[in-house]
Amino acid sequence: MRISQRARVMQESPIRKLAPLATAARQRGLSIYHLNIGQPDLPTPPQFLEAVARFADPVLAYGPSDGLPALREAICAYFSRYKIHLDPSQVLITNGGSEAILFAFSVVADQQEEIIVPEPFYTNYNGYAQMANLHLVPVRTHAEEGFHLPPNEVLERAVSSRTKALLLCSPNNPTGTVLTREELERAADFCLRHDLFLIADEVYKEFTYDGRQHTSVLELPEVEQRVIVVDSISKRFSACGARVGAIISRNRDVMAACLKLGQARLCPPTLEQLGAVAAYQLEEDYFAAIRREYQRRRDVLYDKLTAEPGIILRKPRGAFYMIVKMQGINDADDFAAWLLRDFAEGGETVMVAPASGFYATPGAGRDEVRIAYVLEVAKLERAAEVFLAGLAQYRALQPALTTEA
Amino acid sequence: MRISQRARVMQESPIRKLAPLATAARQRGLSIYHLNIGQPDLPTPPQFLEAVARFADPVLAYGPSDGLPALREAICAYFSRYKIHLDPSQVLITNGGSEAILFAFSVVADQQEEIIVPEPFYTNYNGYAQMANLHLVPVRTHAEEGFHLPPNEVLERAVSSRTKALLLCSPNNPTGTVLTREELERAADFCLRHDLFLIADEVYKEFTYDGRQHTSVLELPEVEQRVIVVDSISKRFSACGARVGAIISRNRDVMAACLKLGQARLCPPTLEQLGAVAAYQLEEDYFAAIRREYQRRRDVLYDKLTAEPGIILRKPRGAFYMIVKMQGINDADDFAAWLLRDFAEGGETVMVAPASGFYATPGAGRDEVRIAYVLEVAKLERAAEVFLAGLAQYRALQPALTTEA
Repeated sequence: MRISQRARVMQESPIRKLAPLATAARQRGLSIYHLNIGQPDLPTPPQFLEAVARFADPVLAYGPSDGLPALREAICAYFSRYKIHLDPSQVLITNGGSEAILFAFSVVADQQEEIIVPEPFYTNYNGYAQMANLHLVPVRTHAEEGFHLPPNEVLERAVSSRTKALLLCSPNNPTGTVLTREELERAADFCLRHDLFLIADEVYKEFTYDGRQHTSVLELPEVEQRVIVVDSISKRFSACGARVGAIISRNRDVMAACLKLGQARLCPPTLEQLGAVAAYQLEEDYFAAIRREYQRRRDVLYDKLTAEPGIILRKPRGAFYMIVKMQGINDADDFAAWLLRDFAEGGETVMVAPASGFYATPGAGRDEVRIAYVLEVAKLERAAEVFLAGLAQYRALQPALTTEA
Repeated sequence: MRISQRARVMQESPIRKLAPLATAARQRGLSIYHLNIGQPDLPTPPQFLEAVARFADPVLAYGPSDGLPALREAICAYFSRYKIHLDPSQVLITNGGSEAILFAFSVVADQQEEIIVPEPFYTNYNGYAQMANLHLVPVRTHAEEGFHLPPNEVLERAVSSRTKALLLCSPNNPTGTVLTREELERAADFCLRHDLFLIADEVYKEFTYDGRQHTSVLELPEVEQRVIVVDSISKRFSACGARVGAIISRNRDVMAACLKLGQARLCPPTLEQLGAVAAYQLEEDYFAAIRREYQRRRDVLYDKLTAEPGIILRKPRGAFYMIVKMQGINDADDFAAWLLRDFAEGGETVMVAPASGFYATPGAGRDEVRIAYVLEVAKLERAAEVFLAGLAQYRALQPALTTEA
């Protein structure tokens, strides 16, 4: 009576696995700057919670398996602001973006089939690939190139007879990279050439800086039937605890299959969908203020970190993460643990996510950490100083490694 | 670019597939009694919605992957009323009972392995078995025996080298059968003999009638490490739209694996968990009133239906469903469709769920329908009359079948 092999091999969350060391550090009296998690600190719009509180039906009944019609319509109206025209039948509400990933994986690929994904990538794709029993085939992107889409020959080498889809995430978690329209068109051509679905995780689409606009794969007419978008309100409206996401596709077979998957789990949460309807009706300037705030934070962190020698970091243009490559480090897992266990400056330390958990290639990302900028500017400045002090001290402890590097 | 085989073969919900005929019937001006769905009509406790409305944190943040500690503690306190002692580490909150089923299946069995389940069974087990790529092996139960647990020799015949678990549901959806302690002990012995997990869906545990008490598999010490309970607040607190369930086990490996699955989808919905905490603190007499109401309904329906010749129905003791076997009918799918399409009495008709969708054995249940009693008594009485009038008329149209039967 052992548990299943698939449950045994399932990865632990690389974002949360250092939690016991953080707890111990706090117990020793240390204060920790959390650069490891993507939990926005900006307030959830009050309209969201007001809409939830207005619910007055006598029974909190099952909703439709594809979500409340009012929410599907609100999402269509919201996308039309971006000149993307959708019908509610092309939008199915999910239990967070997480379930949208699971549905997308299950619908495009059978067991043992493959999905190509640029790495580093959002680590929870791994968990869903394991649940759906399919393989993520990584194509490497690099800090030196700002983690942009690899050249065609790299993509081509990843294709096999079992390849069913290309999975992109833009703006990217964990790199902050925003793919250009040209890159997306190149990805679309690749999908056409190899008869693949194009899955795009666009949950950070409002979070673009320096005046850049996010391009959605829904804007590419040549792959209209191939595109499946994973969406979520978690970051968009600072409502991570709501668990309201969506899967969006103009392919009827895909949506019919998603509906069957949706029927098996009955419906997404009703109250939080009502909150989402209200949030989607917010004015556009809601995002302008948020973008300004995150851009300022990005600037503060980028400027501080790149002022140091031995840090490789191209300016990220979106989301609220960056992958920081550190010369002279060859075990960022150890470095991140050391920061919590053995280091402090003025009673403070920082928690970062080792990047290895965001790679599928063994050994990749061992000189990188993911840093999230979801702290206000003053705290972020200090956190960057503490991080750099820790990095300098850790490097000094590793002379052998430095000469190897 | 076809969708996956697994998405193509996934079943449509047998409970919802007659919906287009119902819509058409309403458009013709007919009034329909819905005996097909398990959506309770009793009000959600106001305390649930009040607790949700009290939420005043600035950010609706990610919660813990295993659920809010307050809810896990409230569930432990609630079980202790039934003399079942649990630690919060033995309770993990899920997105409805549905996700608890998926987690249980994924943790006990690998791809192509088998779980034995008495049929008829809750139809959505099929969807999750397909998603987890494992096989449900049915053991037949019968209307004439009140759908009680089959004899040991039937259970034994279902065992193979790939069998990993026995799945029970008591009180049962769709049959309303409540397993006795002796039956559960026999099931436990079976699991011990073949080294199996014992998964029990106990979401209807408060819904028992005629003074009977529900026995939980958590009360069986000899299988303490084998037991995994699927739980949900949907029916318990008339809160189906909340999507708050739980998976409960004293097996640490099982719970550690469930936590990894839980981390992949981040967390269950926060607001509705807060509502659930309040609901779990309701006084016990909340359930006494509900039990009385459902028992009355069960009595009305049972008395009306069994007064007719040619209906095979043992008195169900729990939940709010019954499987009604009808002599002379050999295609209940057609009968259920005919009720919506071709029949009316006084401008009214009924919608029932053909039982075939609750069986895994091809051809089984074709003379049965599932009837849910979630209507108030006056409506239920009339619904039973309309149903019986329809049955009589449909039988009269099938002389060839009646002589065959």
